[in-house]
Amino acid sequence: MPSVTDDRLLPLLPLIYVAWADGALAPAEIALIRRTAADLGADAEALAPWLDPDAPPSAAALRRLADDLTRRADGHDPDDLTALGLALARDAADDDRARVRAVAERMGLADPDAITELIAPPSRCAAFGCLEPVDLDVTPITRWLERLRPDDRAAARALLSHPSFTHVYDRPIADQRRQVLEWLERVAEAGVGRRAYPETDPEGALSRFVAAFETLALFDVSLTVKCGVQFGLFAGSVRALGTEKHHDVLKQAVDMTLPGCFAMTERGHGSNVRALETTATYDPERDVFVVHTPDDFARKEWIGNAARDGRMATVFAQLVVGGVSRGVHALLVPLRDADGALLPGIRVEDCGPKMGLDGVDNGQIWFEHVEVPRTHLLDRFAEVRPDGTYHSDIVSDGKRFFTMLGTLVGGRVSIAGAAVSVSRVALTIATRYAARRRQFGDKGAQEWLILDYPSHQRRLLPRIAATYAIGFAQEALVRDWEAMDGDPTPEGEDRAQSLEARAAALKAHATWHATDVIQECREACGGQGYAARNRFAALKADSDIFTTFEGDNTVLMQLVARALLTEFQRQFDDSRIFGLVRHFAGRAVAAAFDRNPYITQRTDRDHLRDREWHAQIMAARQADLTHSLGMRLQKRLGRMSSFEAFNQVQNHALALAGAYAERLTLDALHAALDDFGGPAEQRAILTDLTRLHGLYAIERDRAWFLENGYLDGDKARAVCDEVDALCAELRPHALALVEAFAVPEKCLGAIGAE
Amino acid sequence: MPSVTDDRLLPLLPLIYVAWADGALAPAEIALIRRTAADLGADAEALAPWLDPDAPPSAAALRRLADDLTRRADGHDPDDLTALGLALARDAADDDRARVRAVAERMGLADPDAITELIAPPSRCAAFGCLEPVDLDVTPITRWLERLRPDDRAAARALLSHPSFTHVYDRPIADQRRQVLEWLERVAEAGVGRRAYPETDPEGALSRFVAAFETLALFDVSLTVKCGVQFGLFAGSVRALGTEKHHDVLKQAVDMTLPGCFAMTERGHGSNVRALETTATYDPERDVFVVHTPDDFARKEWIGNAARDGRMATVFAQLVVGGVSRGVHALLVPLRDADGALLPGIRVEDCGPKMGLDGVDNGQIWFEHVEVPRTHLLDRFAEVRPDGTYHSDIVSDGKRFFTMLGTLVGGRVSIAGAAVSVSRVALTIATRYAARRRQFGDKGAQEWLILDYPSHQRRLLPRIAATYAIGFAQEALVRDWEAMDGDPTPEGEDRAQSLEARAAALKAHATWHATDVIQECREACGGQGYAARNRFAALKADSDIFTTFEGDNTVLMQLVARALLTEFQRQFDDSRIFGLVRHFAGRAVAAAFDRNPYITQRTDRDHLRDREWHAQIMAARQADLTHSLGMRLQKRLGRMSSFEAFNQVQNHALALAGAYAERLTLDALHAALDDFGGPAEQRAILTDLTRLHGLYAIERDRAWFLENGYLDGDKARAVCDEVDALCAELRPHALALVEAFAVPEKCLGAIGAE
Repeated sequence: MPSVTDDRLLPLLPLIYVAWADGALAPAEIALIRRTAADLGADAEALAPWLDPDAPPSAAALRRLADDLTRRADGHDPDDLTALGLALARDAADDDRARVRAVAERMGLADPDAITELIAPPSRCAAFGCLEPVDLDVTPITRWLERLRPDDRAAARALLSHPSFTHVYDRPIADQRRQVLEWLERVAEAGVGRRAYPETDPEGALSRFVAAFETLALFDVSLTVKCGVQFGLFAGSVRALGTEKHHDVLKQAVDMTLPGCFAMTERGHGSNVRALETTATYDPERDVFVVHTPDDFARKEWIGNAARDGRMATVFAQLVVGGVSRGVHALLVPLRDADGALLPGIRVEDCGPKMGLDGVDNGQIWFEHVEVPRTHLLDRFAEVRPDGTYHSDIVSDGKRFFTMLGTLVGGRVSIAGAAVSVSRVALTIATRYAARRRQFGDKGAQEWLILDYPSHQRRLLPRIAATYAIGFAQEALVRDWEAMDGDPTPEGEDRAQSLEARAAALKAHATWHATDVIQECREACGGQGYAARNRFAALKADSDIFTTFEGDNTVLMQLVARALLTEFQRQFDDSRIFGLVRHFAGRAVAAAFDRNPYITQRTDRDHLRDREWHAQIMAARQADLTHSLGMRLQKRLGRMSSFEAFNQVQNHALALAGAYAERLTLDALHAALDDFGGPAEQRAILTDLTRLHGLYAIERDRAWFLENGYLDGDKARAVCDEVDALCAELRPHALALVEAFAVPEKCLGAIGAE
Repeated sequence: MPSVTDDRLLPLLPLIYVAWADGALAPAEIALIRRTAADLGADAEALAPWLDPDAPPSAAALRRLADDLTRRADGHDPDDLTALGLALARDAADDDRARVRAVAERMGLADPDAITELIAPPSRCAAFGCLEPVDLDVTPITRWLERLRPDDRAAARALLSHPSFTHVYDRPIADQRRQVLEWLERVAEAGVGRRAYPETDPEGALSRFVAAFETLALFDVSLTVKCGVQFGLFAGSVRALGTEKHHDVLKQAVDMTLPGCFAMTERGHGSNVRALETTATYDPERDVFVVHTPDDFARKEWIGNAARDGRMATVFAQLVVGGVSRGVHALLVPLRDADGALLPGIRVEDCGPKMGLDGVDNGQIWFEHVEVPRTHLLDRFAEVRPDGTYHSDIVSDGKRFFTMLGTLVGGRVSIAGAAVSVSRVALTIATRYAARRRQFGDKGAQEWLILDYPSHQRRLLPRIAATYAIGFAQEALVRDWEAMDGDPTPEGEDRAQSLEARAAALKAHATWHATDVIQECREACGGQGYAARNRFAALKADSDIFTTFEGDNTVLMQLVARALLTEFQRQFDDSRIFGLVRHFAGRAVAAAFDRNPYITQRTDRDHLRDREWHAQIMAARQADLTHSLGMRLQKRLGRMSSFEAFNQVQNHALALAGAYAERLTLDALHAALDDFGGPAEQRAILTDLTRLHGLYAIERDRAWFLENGYLDGDKARAVCDEVDALCAELRPHALALVEAFAVPEKCLGAIGAE
């Protein structure tokens, strides 16, 4: 479409544009425009290509026209498009202005706002233009999402606003490590570490730390993980496993004056850490522990902070006292001197290039008969006295070990939080992109926003809903963990074990969710998702390890299933499992399996959107799977070891753990919604989001519900249709729902930025 | 467990080891060993920790003992463990040897092979040890997998064996680009490009190119993509769209003496390429085309070879001749001179760091009124004559454009092939890892190979089966495409369109499969999967773009659904859709929906494994979804445009396309199995693999089958159980099945390498 060069025609162009973009240019209007062009003394033929009712201009041509008009309005803020009409007519004679105005009136476009409104989106909202406006006040939603420790979140946000926190892409690994260390030092300086370990309010430590950790994860996962290593794992292990004599180390750890490591994983044992092989043998003559790596598979591996910065490490090793092995214990082993030089007997190798986390210096460590003073044993749960005798209040090696591990659950909780944060970032970028990217459309009309395609709504909206839900499940876990801390009664222990299972389930569920969300969002942004400047490269590569570190997800989910089976019991062993199965076979369970409340053939909207139904069917699935898992185990336990029996029902156990995690998050979202204190409009949208989350979870596992008689075919189809309907209803609020995540602009990459 | 230092005790150690590893050391045996130790004149107490029936040595201690024994057998090939026993007793007196032998006899371990066999696995197969042996001859399977163009595959393999083809991790982008260019030049030198475009046998071009392309993809995806840009897209577009006058350029392209680009995608239009905005306007006075980028959204983006190496580009632009726009055409535009300097009017910017493909120099291109001779138009389907008139045998702009695009389907076919290759690499690494990595086990016993866990079998085996199936679907597509080439009749056109739909479906299906496989395999290797040296980092990052380039998968799948709906029709428009729906509503379809053959309540093994049932139920699902999609469209078409109507049923359309892709791959695997010419043992394993593939596809979509009455709950559960059973049955052959992929050792990373 040739461009119009006769300036006298310019005032007519917005009218032509608006008319076509609106899809209607009647023959009478065409004649009017032609006549007016002639009246203006211009060559009306130059307009001919724009006035052919049989060959309307293409969307591309219209957009070019709009761009051209916008450019011509130079000297004006391009946002202020009211100025456009005036600018174009500024040199025209008064009666020419009057002529144009007359045409506009005839075409129903006399109100300058009408033109402005219509021209505004295409002129900047071309194939990739300005964002749709968000009319909803999202502040109440943001406040609700961040209601736990908002001050710590605000402080971390303020810190991130400093210009030194800026993404640079394709930096060599060495530079990236330097950068992340510098960031970490700023974080420590700002008191994030100290706030997480206050002497006055130790009970708030987890929530304060997690609040900061989650906020930092919006910006950079390398920084987050390095924070996690230093403040969470290193300082956290000293605090949880040490005693007063280790407070000095703790203080230096939280101040980052002593960079440290958490040396648990070995090459040979990552998941089965009870079988670690590093030894710490007490030498009574020299009153030291001798820490040693007996073979190459016992080298410590993937240890964060080890390759470059760490000067001290919490080392997990088989403790040998008086020739007797006491199982895995933790002790402090210095790695480097104040100048960063490795100490004698310590060998470190870099783990080499990784998929991501370039800013984290992971290393391997070998110990060659390294001596450390007896006081370096972190001796909260077991001590070696000056007389060389071993003492622990916990008699069983296994129980002692799991008690120690239990105190370190903060790592899992933190990772789940970071997974929620990266999901929020990815969803914000992809939703913003979808709310400004256009592609395809009816012939001659403006192309569609990709967010208006139902398949695209399905990619984003259920994931937004799940991200809300998991965030609240995470919040509830942190609250309950802090509330529980310190109860030494058997009931307290049971609660602790139950919370450990919840933490494991949520860690696995949240990190698998993040991996899925980031992948889907990357693809939803097409080629743009592949450019490093658009953040997905880092989000994906850096968070990918979440699913297998701090406990491999598949292993964790099996622990969850075991915990669910033994909820009323202390430990899993053959005899107890039999008891449990008897319990399930008994009448108490029969009552729980009265399916009447959930089984209904209702397929009306009210029922399908009823959150009580969602909650009931989720709870029923969990109970049903627990029961059938118990029955399957019972059949096997007489014939094989409990280890093998459990392995044979492994896939069933994983299904149970997954069902539990989904129920957990749905219940958390329901509870949070009840506490939402914002206005009714926001509450209504969040209510629909909650419905979508529940219904989508049912849809995803509808095969199971169908197989087990909770749904019939008609109802299952109705569930799918209702998910579509909820997606469409929520589509106008999609952008508001991600804006409520309040991800800092600098974290949203090039296509996400405003 | 202290190590035994008294050399006289050494000959007893293998017996102790074997007894414990076997799980049995009876009190009488313990007494016998003690007595023999005394007879040997050694300190029997040194053995005490090894002989306590109440405290059996840990798995770790046993492994250390085994390692120790192996080390002591020095001077012998550690593989030859028969030598071990002799080595340990070599200095003993004859009667001492006799004493040891007597103990061995009493313990049932006199046969030296018994010791060797038992000691062999733990001594090298510790937590991560030697691979299980593969007893099956996999050569017939490999030959079967590579039966199309084996010579080209062998040539590419031979090329890759050159030491210059070696992975280096964490190389700066500039170095990586230099390296990949050098590799590409070697590939060209070896004649890969020439073989793909032989003047004598043009019909074999696609299969020969794809064979080389798939083989190179085993090694490095950057190299593969750069090959694809040069030989597939650049040379391919010249060959498919040009005429004789362009043969010189083609020759230089296949020789890599003229590095080139394929400049289609623009910032504003990636999927909707018919709306590209770059213009090529014919200037009759100067007999040239003027190529121009009208605005910033029309810049060419993500163009491979553009940022650094490309000297010529096939540019897609709106052709304007005599003031009339003729739609998108392709023409050759020189970018750089022989020294690599940009030519006047050409602006290029690097696309910047990406998620992966560091070796590919993607760039953005702007054209500022660049003139190229008229002869640069690739004029196979449309020409501009010296008199400045436009001619094309294809009257409709749209049809001409899609005809041009159709000839370029090779790109999609190649990507599907590369996706199969990267899936093979990932599965080989992960299966090898699972067949040597041990973790957890019964107390005191050797830990389990992770491949022996049912959940792990489910992660790998169905994906191995699908990778076989997709590979054969790919092979069939290439064969059929070559067989079809050149038939100008309407039936030929229909076949071409049907093949284009197949290519689109397979590209989307294969690339989503690869993304899923790589992610699953990465996680299945735990932390090791995260190390760059283990290949997943590159596999994942480099292949991630597969799902959205060469046609966004979601867009492609919608094209597939449209094509399926109009299989008997030429073009999709409102009236024809109505006709189609009438067709479906008619009796022909009623017959097709006679579900009797598939609907049965049989849950016996023979039925569940019956491939005819698998094929029928897959075909029925496709027909059913086509029918219901047609009905849904019909309901809407009166009330809205066909564009909008199709969007409203988009999720249904995607389900249909997915069902089609699955049927396609299952049928291809069935057909390939019928042609397998290898021995019965291999055939039996492949038959089970085929069953697993069919049954797993049913299991995955069992919700749909349940909803639509093809399965009931009991049968669906039986399907799941049978998938478990097939996984367990195939587990002993897992390693053989991936070894048959014959991925070169150098492509398998550190944990995959032998």
